[in-house]
Amino acid sequence: MHGTNPLIEKLPGFAGGTIDRVDHIRTNPAKLAEAFADPAARLLVLDGLEPVEVNGHLLLEPLAADADVADHVLLGIDPAGQPIFARLVADLGPNLVPTPRSRAIAGLVPAAEVALYGTARSLVHWHARHRFCSVCGGPTQPVKAGWSRRCDLCAAEHFPRTDPVVIMLAEYRGRVLVGRQHAWPQGRYSALAGFVEPGETIEEAVSRELFEEAGIRVRDVRYVMSQPWPFPSSLMIACIAQADDDALTLDPTEIEDAFWCDADAVRAALAEEPGAPFLAPPTMAVAWHLFDRWLAGVAPSDASA
Amino acid sequence: MHGTNPLIEKLPGFAGGTIDRVDHIRTNPAKLAEAFADPAARLLVLDGLEPVEVNGHLLLEPLAADADVADHVLLGIDPAGQPIFARLVADLGPNLVPTPRSRAIAGLVPAAEVALYGTARSLVHWHARHRFCSVCGGPTQPVKAGWSRRCDLCAAEHFPRTDPVVIMLAEYRGRVLVGRQHAWPQGRYSALAGFVEPGETIEEAVSRELFEEAGIRVRDVRYVMSQPWPFPSSLMIACIAQADDDALTLDPTEIEDAFWCDADAVRAALAEEPGAPFLAPPTMAVAWHLFDRWLAGVAPSDASA
Ligand SMILES: [Zn+2]
Ligand SMILES: [Zn+2]
Repeated sequence: MHGTNPLIEKLPGFAGGTIDRVDHIRTNPAKLAEAFADPAARLLVLDGLEPVEVNGHLLLEPLAADADVADHVLLGIDPAGQPIFARLVADLGPNLVPTPRSRAIAGLVPAAEVALYGTARSLVHWHARHRFCSVCGGPTQPVKAGWSRRCDLCAAEHFPRTDPVVIMLAEYRGRVLVGRQHAWPQGRYSALAGFVEPGETIEEAVSRELFEEAGIRVRDVRYVMSQPWPFPSSLMIACIAQADDDALTLDPTEIEDAFWCDADAVRAALAEEPGAPFLAPPTMAVAWHLFDRWLAGVAPSDASA
Repeated sequence: MHGTNPLIEKLPGFAGGTIDRVDHIRTNPAKLAEAFADPAARLLVLDGLEPVEVNGHLLLEPLAADADVADHVLLGIDPAGQPIFARLVADLGPNLVPTPRSRAIAGLVPAAEVALYGTARSLVHWHARHRFCSVCGGPTQPVKAGWSRRCDLCAAEHFPRTDPVVIMLAEYRGRVLVGRQHAWPQGRYSALAGFVEPGETIEEAVSRELFEEAGIRVRDVRYVMSQPWPFPSSLMIACIAQADDDALTLDPTEIEDAFWCDADAVRAALAEEPGAPFLAPPTMAVAWHLFDRWLAGVAPSDASA
């Protein structure tokens, strides 16, 4: 859908998918078998959970002659009409932590393929971690073309998770709050973030996280954009909020350091200028785009405030 | 935080919580024990998953003398300083389907209590359905004050689910699309909705769902508001999108009927006027507020188009 949209380059990594998810085929075994038997059908090859890139594209291969549709998830039908499958792996072993390769893919293949990889990674990971029923402990099997699993014993149906996460900039008098976690590369600062919990709105989660992590109270939370983040399966919800005050009380278990940063400093960081006060997140991260959108909305008088 | 905000009446049901979720106590066993032993601590009484209302408030009781903190989730500390717990139930039996009581509570107690009930319901439900480890089938135990469960066998940690759902109005030349599902009360129409899937943005999910369910293509998806929906644990993300065309192709498995509706008709439906072309969703539903926000943004010329 976004295939011809020039704005796509302004999307973060893993957004901008062009595959048709063909929901109507998932629940129709005859149509699923037809898609699996289609000579145009392709397997998206993964190395465990990692992407495999060849000549600027993800590696797609014909399905093996002895492949079983029950071991596959139908990711969808791509714009060329190819049904694209990923193979479900019973045991991924300890290889669940993304290597640098899985993030670098965003710079190596077209955006739509990055999105396809993200979808596959989330689903293959979810299946490997849901071989048993959380209700009764019984074994589960993939159903609906790999879009759910059913328990052999109690018949409970389980659906892939998507965990909403808020990621946000607090703004105060022309400056925004940037922070860093202990494990990040030296000099890297970004927007603060945290999971949305049961029983709260997006706006309430933004307020709670900024208070928990930085001790600031905010209002006027504005939604900016979203991004699927396949490590393992988050929905990043990027927002900007207005802080009531700039006094910080950091939670040392979550945040190593944080400071308020004006537009010139953010611009320098995004441009990777020498002397910029922090190392910005990569352009594939929604945080980079959140900074960029904030700059686009900052009036010149604010920028020099 | 929203306690004194007059806008709270404009929030949908289950939004507007005022409890402090005290993340720092969840992972601190000494502080948790202290909160549990606090004479001010209260149990939010549930009947299975259903709310218990007495004199316009949720029923709160002192913790039983023999109560074990390990069987409880700490919902947080309320504005009066009371630590509020809910009791985890190993087996809810078949009583997982909400009765009319669980929705009617939105009209019986203050908004902050409705939000507290929603949080408790989602968490108690999640615990009852996650007594076993999805990775290995082993038994799991609540940890972190009931905010996660850990597997006895493989030590995997499992967190409560929150499933993002998009709910949206498509707009075309001053009219919005309303639709109904087969199971709804006679005459009821609302915004269309569907789960966000792994690998897509909010905007992409809106586009996909409107195409799957109604056959329309949209652009310019705008976020409007969000709502926690505790049946069992969704995050409703309400949006408005611009349709390219008004020709409909309905998916009969999802949608029984749908039609385009102008502002006067939507206004009549929200006001429950006799002769309104459809029965609007209740005010506790985010869809009601989505219609209301759409009307607020409709120029008079659009309204009469
Ligand atoms: Zn089961
Ligand atoms: Zn386990």
